[in-house]
Amino acid sequence: MISSSANAQIKYIEKLMKSSRERAKEGLYVCEGLRMFLEVLEQPGALVKAYVSECFCGQEVFREKIRGRLTVPWETVADPVFDRVSDTMTPQGILGLVRKPEYDLEQILTGTDRNLLVLEDLRDPGNLGTMIRTAEAAGIGGMILSRGSADLFNPKVIRATMGAIYRVPFVYAEDFGAALSMLSDRGITIYAAHLEGSICYDEADYTKRCAILIGNEANGLSESAASLADSRIRIPMEGRTESLNAAVAAAVLMYEAFRQRRACRES
Amino acid sequence: MISSSANAQIKYIEKLMKSSRERAKEGLYVCEGLRMFLEVLEQPGALVKAYVSECFCGQEVFREKIRGRLTVPWETVADPVFDRVSDTMTPQGILGLVRKPEYDLEQILTGTDRNLLVLEDLRDPGNLGTMIRTAEAAGIGGMILSRGSADLFNPKVIRATMGAIYRVPFVYAEDFGAALSMLSDRGITIYAAHLEGSICYDEADYTKRCAILIGNEANGLSESAASLADSRIRIPMEGRTESLNAAVAAAVLMYEAFRQRRACRES
Repeated sequence: MISSSANAQIKYIEKLMKSSRERAKEGLYVCEGLRMFLEVLEQPGALVKAYVSECFCGQEVFREKIRGRLTVPWETVADPVFDRVSDTMTPQGILGLVRKPEYDLEQILTGTDRNLLVLEDLRDPGNLGTMIRTAEAAGIGGMILSRGSADLFNPKVIRATMGAIYRVPFVYAEDFGAALSMLSDRGITIYAAHLEGSICYDEADYTKRCAILIGNEANGLSESAASLADSRIRIPMEGRTESLNAAVAAAVLMYEAFRQRRACRES
Repeated sequence: MISSSANAQIKYIEKLMKSSRERAKEGLYVCEGLRMFLEVLEQPGALVKAYVSECFCGQEVFREKIRGRLTVPWETVADPVFDRVSDTMTPQGILGLVRKPEYDLEQILTGTDRNLLVLEDLRDPGNLGTMIRTAEAAGIGGMILSRGSADLFNPKVIRATMGAIYRVPFVYAEDFGAALSMLSDRGITIYAAHLEGSICYDEADYTKRCAILIGNEANGLSESAASLADSRIRIPMEGRTESLNAAVAAAVLMYEAFRQRRACRES
């Protein structure tokens, strides 16, 4: 049993939780909590190692739902050590080191006929996680993110996705402009969410394959990204609101696209 | 100048920031940051006292946009003391003690023909703030909250509203069931967001006056509240998503209602 916070494995977990550079270097991230852990167990080859708190080890749910399915090494961790390493207020006693899934742009472009979500420099982990969760629900087929966006494997993002991170393929584009041009080349219409959009978002046609492009929370889209879009779409706002929360704006657009696609399927 | 964190006024500000009971007792809350402070200055009689950090005091924006408009007492606070009392990571050097606005249910029911947002036991301050911000943008005319909901004057909620808190009237209903019955008596259709809703949210008619009812983040609506609704509406979800974030669900519903109302106005 690991009984000290100074243990090298504990230090390694902490590093992976804190640093996106470390996660990139190792190709690993930390998944925490029962629900997320059970989802990881369903992905063949994803789990690399598991850590179980002393208390959770004795629980029925661990003995019945997890222990028999662990085909990788696992360690018991003393409760106070586990609680200290945990990123949550109420640690559930289980975490795993997990291999980061890898997708490439080509896969996302050809793997599905569904609409895409494209994010430029989205910084807030909570917003990003919420967007992935909403994207899965709204039938989005994949996500393209600029390099300046938050890391999907930040523990806060993973929690906010509620598992959607395992099901919506994504890629960080090395060259964001080139990725947008590739979308256009494939005949995918790019709609840029823009405060000065020339058309109202519900006047756009999302029934043919399209990509919804959302910019940074504070500054919106860069002019260079917006200029690569086919249309700039605007979400109307009453009152004195200057903008919507980025995850809310993305949800309104994704659900309008989904509404149109469902109406189209039904007719 | 206040130069110690032990100062009685500083202690009072901290109490008001932390405790909703204290805010209720005093009828006051703390507004922080330049933008929110400027909004408060536009509400006649709202500001009771202002606190300015030493550093902000010397800045042009304070001398030109604020000092001349301050008709209430104000105090300078030493920078380290101000930074400690601030609830934000990057304090802007200005905060105010502000009188809580008071609305009653009757005002909200009769003051407008717009749709309403009704919240049962919504707990997350960030979600609540985002909802108010979205509500203003989507043309919602007022909010009714159950007593078990988060306090709108929690500093986190105020920040997330981006000022909408001054413009969307709201009331905490002493008796939530009675408030819902009052809506029905006035001919306002109540649509309850429900995972097992019998109709899809975009099949409901929001063009006549209606109320959108949203439940607690973890448990959804209580059966007693849902049973007082005219219809239970469901947001369709693809994939394995079990639910949407509460602020996202509210946004999808409010914007569908707004879309229908705009289409109706235009035709």
